[in-house]
Amino acid sequence: MGYPLKNRQILLKRRPVGLPNESDYEVVTSPVTPLEPGELLMRNDLISLDPAIRGWMSADEDSYMPPIALGDPVRSSTLSTVVASRNPDYEVGDLVLGLNAWEEYTKLGDIRHIHSFATKMPKDLGVPNTWLLSVLGATGMTAYFGLLYVGEPKPGDTVLVSSAAGAVGSIVGQIAKLKGCRVVGIAGSDEKCRWLKDELGFDDAINYKDNNNRELLGCAIAKSCPEGVDIYFENVGGYFLEAVLDNIAERGRVIICGLISQYNEEVGSGPENIWKLLVKSARIEGFLIRDYVEQMPEAALKIGQWLAEGKIRNKVDLHTGFDNIPASFLKLFSGRNQGKLIVELEFDRE
Amino acid sequence: MGYPLKNRQILLKRRPVGLPNESDYEVVTSPVTPLEPGELLMRNDLISLDPAIRGWMSADEDSYMPPIALGDPVRSSTLSTVVASRNPDYEVGDLVLGLNAWEEYTKLGDIRHIHSFATKMPKDLGVPNTWLLSVLGATGMTAYFGLLYVGEPKPGDTVLVSSAAGAVGSIVGQIAKLKGCRVVGIAGSDEKCRWLKDELGFDDAINYKDNNNRELLGCAIAKSCPEGVDIYFENVGGYFLEAVLDNIAERGRVIICGLISQYNEEVGSGPENIWKLLVKSARIEGFLIRDYVEQMPEAALKIGQWLAEGKIRNKVDLHTGFDNIPASFLKLFSGRNQGKLIVELEFDRE
Repeated sequence: MGYPLKNRQILLKRRPVGLPNESDYEVVTSPVTPLEPGELLMRNDLISLDPAIRGWMSADEDSYMPPIALGDPVRSSTLSTVVASRNPDYEVGDLVLGLNAWEEYTKLGDIRHIHSFATKMPKDLGVPNTWLLSVLGATGMTAYFGLLYVGEPKPGDTVLVSSAAGAVGSIVGQIAKLKGCRVVGIAGSDEKCRWLKDELGFDDAINYKDNNNRELLGCAIAKSCPEGVDIYFENVGGYFLEAVLDNIAERGRVIICGLISQYNEEVGSGPENIWKLLVKSARIEGFLIRDYVEQMPEAALKIGQWLAEGKIRNKVDLHTGFDNIPASFLKLFSGRNQGKLIVELEFDRE
Repeated sequence: MGYPLKNRQILLKRRPVGLPNESDYEVVTSPVTPLEPGELLMRNDLISLDPAIRGWMSADEDSYMPPIALGDPVRSSTLSTVVASRNPDYEVGDLVLGLNAWEEYTKLGDIRHIHSFATKMPKDLGVPNTWLLSVLGATGMTAYFGLLYVGEPKPGDTVLVSSAAGAVGSIVGQIAKLKGCRVVGIAGSDEKCRWLKDELGFDDAINYKDNNNRELLGCAIAKSCPEGVDIYFENVGGYFLEAVLDNIAERGRVIICGLISQYNEEVGSGPENIWKLLVKSARIEGFLIRDYVEQMPEAALKIGQWLAEGKIRNKVDLHTGFDNIPASFLKLFSGRNQGKLIVELEFDRE
């Protein structure tokens, strides 16, 4: 691995209105300058594509993380290899998990990448590297903490999951099954619904494309969840949330993990039936995995154990090629991806 | 107290659209039939007027209590005197708290009044009877359980209360002060705001009539709650909730006690910025006091003690006369009442 001469990057040129398109980005090639003392250079082998990135593209200063600055490369979770280091804590060949960007190489220490971090990963875990960005990474943690710590499932609870065939939802449903819950998924195709039931063990699944408004989805939920919804793991928002509140059980819990239907809207829409929270003594609660830093070792251990025992399955939707990042990213918003969306960059392995 | 010959009642003739008006009611006078064995007849001395009654007038079958049937008298909390009894557990002169109706007399055992109950009250409590329907009744319990059990205030928390000059809100704010919180109220006039600050010890108060949209109210909240809102005790809904979510602190808690701005709307409106729950790890939670039946003795004792020690004050907005019930009820929805709204019925005391 020689020191690279140039770096390809996808910069955020302007803040998207609605779905991001190519005029929101600028693809540039820039030289890689030599390392200063303390710096390290990472090659971004795997780029994780997550709905949250769309939020970071917007201008909201009052979010949990500052927006991506215009002109910066698009922030993204990454699994990288250290290709050069002037930092005593890292050596060439180290595998690191980070919050880098849509670029081939990221230099840590570069003031622009203030959110970068580089957590060294063991190289002999015996699992595919993609798992470190999915079920063993933030995706798995999100499912684990959201469902177990925010939702507090009890055996026999009915757990409804939206984006159930997505990266987080598919793990949530499987953990809920392990906890003795009845699990129903909402997904965007009959094929995905079959996958949820036949492969992942969901008790039932609803195709929202056949139930594309509050009334229809509400009816489908009522049918699949005759005792009401005790826990709803929310990844979508909009009419999904209203249809669920129409069916919420007493003391029901809505876990807000994401609101993907809202991310490309200029003005969001809230559930008009929020009074259901009152009459059912129910709650809606948001969370961030950084609230659970202390519990992360427990989560990693538990998830690793379930994987080893074959009790949960991880599905990765792997794409290839730097140029395909923006188009792959859009799959998240069209309901077309299944499992965890990752783009693998190609490098000449010297 | 002779056995009454006739009973005046205000029946729900049709379900109101928007604010209830006189054509939604029918005032009737009917004979009082003799008691059957086991029955008792109560004279409704005090009628409690609460926002929840508006909800019971609507047709929603999936609420925490069935709607008032068309043709039935309007359900209401009441403090009554037993005027005749063929039930061994009650004797003439007993003071009873019940869920009777907008009528002079209620017969318990009457199948129509399936929600009636009659909880005997001690006669020598040394407090005005109106207090049994307010700070020592459901109003006080609502404030106590909502704030303490749902909101879980910690010393130093900023607690914001809407309808702060109302029956529940005024008690919530005072309890929050006792728990070491910084307390800000939202109310509908400068006079009420002065009362909250000067008489009840609120740290600050916002007149929403000067801040009648999300942006203005949000600015006022930001000014009064510079560290953000840790707990919001919600009685209003609509743009109030959005303005608060714009200012919610990390791990903030919104307690849904009521949504009075929504009760007369055909279609409610939900907070479009519900994503704030996600980025702030915050929650919105509803509750009903019946969830806390076991804790009620504790609450009554505690509130009684605070009252005795002069640590909280109770304000009653007392009206007089059966005919004035519907007009008095409307005061709740115009922001004109201050404290607990009760109508005292007049009877010839023989």
